[in-house]
Amino acid sequence: MHSLGRSWLLLTGFILFYVIYLLFGALMFSSIERPVEDKLRQEMEVLKQEFLNQSCVNSTSLERFLVKVLTANKYGVSVLANNSATSNWDLTSSMFFANTLVTTVGYGQTTPLSDTGKAFSILYALIGVPFTMLVLTACVQRIMCPLVLSPVSLLQRSGMEPRPATFLHFLLLLLLVVLCFFVVPAAVFSSVELSWSFLDGIYFCFISLCTIGLGDFVPGTQPGQKYRQLYQVTVMVYLFLGLMMMYLLLRTFHKMADLHGLTTFLQLPRCDESDLEDDREPIIEGKPEDQAPPYQTEKEANKHLKPGSHPVYNTINSG
Amino acid sequence: MHSLGRSWLLLTGFILFYVIYLLFGALMFSSIERPVEDKLRQEMEVLKQEFLNQSCVNSTSLERFLVKVLTANKYGVSVLANNSATSNWDLTSSMFFANTLVTTVGYGQTTPLSDTGKAFSILYALIGVPFTMLVLTACVQRIMCPLVLSPVSLLQRSGMEPRPATFLHFLLLLLLVVLCFFVVPAAVFSSVELSWSFLDGIYFCFISLCTIGLGDFVPGTQPGQKYRQLYQVTVMVYLFLGLMMMYLLLRTFHKMADLHGLTTFLQLPRCDESDLEDDREPIIEGKPEDQAPPYQTEKEANKHLKPGSHPVYNTINSG
Repeated sequence: MHSLGRSWLLLTGFILFYVIYLLFGALMFSSIERPVEDKLRQEMEVLKQEFLNQSCVNSTSLERFLVKVLTANKYGVSVLANNSATSNWDLTSSMFFANTLVTTVGYGQTTPLSDTGKAFSILYALIGVPFTMLVLTACVQRIMCPLVLSPVSLLQRSGMEPRPATFLHFLLLLLLVVLCFFVVPAAVFSSVELSWSFLDGIYFCFISLCTIGLGDFVPGTQPGQKYRQLYQVTVMVYLFLGLMMMYLLLRTFHKMADLHGLTTFLQLPRCDESDLEDDREPIIEGKPEDQAPPYQTEKEANKHLKPGSHPVYNTINSG
Repeated sequence: MHSLGRSWLLLTGFILFYVIYLLFGALMFSSIERPVEDKLRQEMEVLKQEFLNQSCVNSTSLERFLVKVLTANKYGVSVLANNSATSNWDLTSSMFFANTLVTTVGYGQTTPLSDTGKAFSILYALIGVPFTMLVLTACVQRIMCPLVLSPVSLLQRSGMEPRPATFLHFLLLLLLVVLCFFVVPAAVFSSVELSWSFLDGIYFCFISLCTIGLGDFVPGTQPGQKYRQLYQVTVMVYLFLGLMMMYLLLRTFHKMADLHGLTTFLQLPRCDESDLEDDREPIIEGKPEDQAPPYQTEKEANKHLKPGSHPVYNTINSG
């Protein structure tokens, strides 16, 4: 129980730090990029007026104008009249950008304009990406019991064999994820976003939750979006929960593949053996002098791999 | 030796299938998207001519023209004169797109225009993303021995303690990866791409190899790029090798964190125990009647976790 309490305390700490890190990122990106964006936006406004004021538009002047328009657009600065009011670097949008960086989704509909912004993006992601992976892993670790271990145990107690039980459980979990994280959100997105079809919604959910993040569909970017900031925060929460469920699916599949002999057949690493909160004790309480080399060469390791021997990492008392 | 041979045969099969899958994707994307792109490109050409031919450019007509220009640009179709010659959906560019889909980098400088293209992207990534993860895992599995196990073993044989040895090895590996996959490629990119600084190169390498893929910098997209197709293929190979090395770094770090007690302290899953080609045999040769439930609830699992007991997955003979 002590360990269980510590486990939840750790998780709360992780999530709290994650939110603080996003807020810190939002503040930094906003303060670095907003002035640069404002300047570019003003320049584009002047350029547009100059273009409109010229008596005769020729091919060369149009080309020159379009090059600048498209370059500004690459950085998320639009010259369109109804887009000029909303900044890409207000606090919520900056937080949304920070979130797409650390989750590696990276839509790229907004990108840093300045060299300082680019350098900060590198540093921010350098810490943020591994930390987000850690938070997601910790969350998945905690939901393994209610969503994987208990249901499979229940199926088995109802008389199913282990392998069909894990297969059926995986199918049910897949169905749940597809419904709650693809079909329902896609329906919501296609009703909130005026120009999105249901297929666009599904496409967005899939491209986002696989962390591909092409950025051709990004929620909350249409002009005059109601409650834009609340909407962006909701999308961030959706992304986090969605990624967590995708990772859970992947781990469950990996465990099932282990059990069905697929990883052994394909000579790939097995899923880790221990998933529960209390099973962190080294299996052998080795004395320091028992320590084996940590990474062994093939020949050396094979000596240990007779039936009944233990994997080399377990022989080191890492506590 | 038989197992070693089978292991390399499997790896060769994986890589061969990966290349075939990319070629298949390239063919499909090219045949789906090229006609739509050509149509849009022609429409944009007509629109541009119409815009140039009008006697008076006013704010409304410019706005209407720019909306269409920016929409086409979102799909990678540029109205600029020097960009109109190169297609985003020729065979190499389609393969590049397919590659950014399956590796989850997803630059998004080119995105599918048609609904068929979007639906195919989902299906293609649905198989491609897990398969690419599998190929990368298989590759990392094979390079663990020469790049991690042997060097650490060597450091230990020279008299170092296990923990400092793994730490020093990790630092050396990190330095190697930073040099070969960040500094050198960034220098190459900044000399090949006319508008890129060295920082832009580093930023591109980092954003790509973290699979964020914002898409503000994409190699081979400048007009009149020499040997563009060869260059794109080289970038694809770089991305694959880079992702492999990032994954190797991550696994080495995970192993080191295990050894230093970090994963235990943070109550996170340990890296898998077995990394070598021949260690796939179940540790206990369990008879069918010995089978324990595959996923156990906390209470049940704890019964097994006395010192000397074995993790539950190992008790199932998965052969």
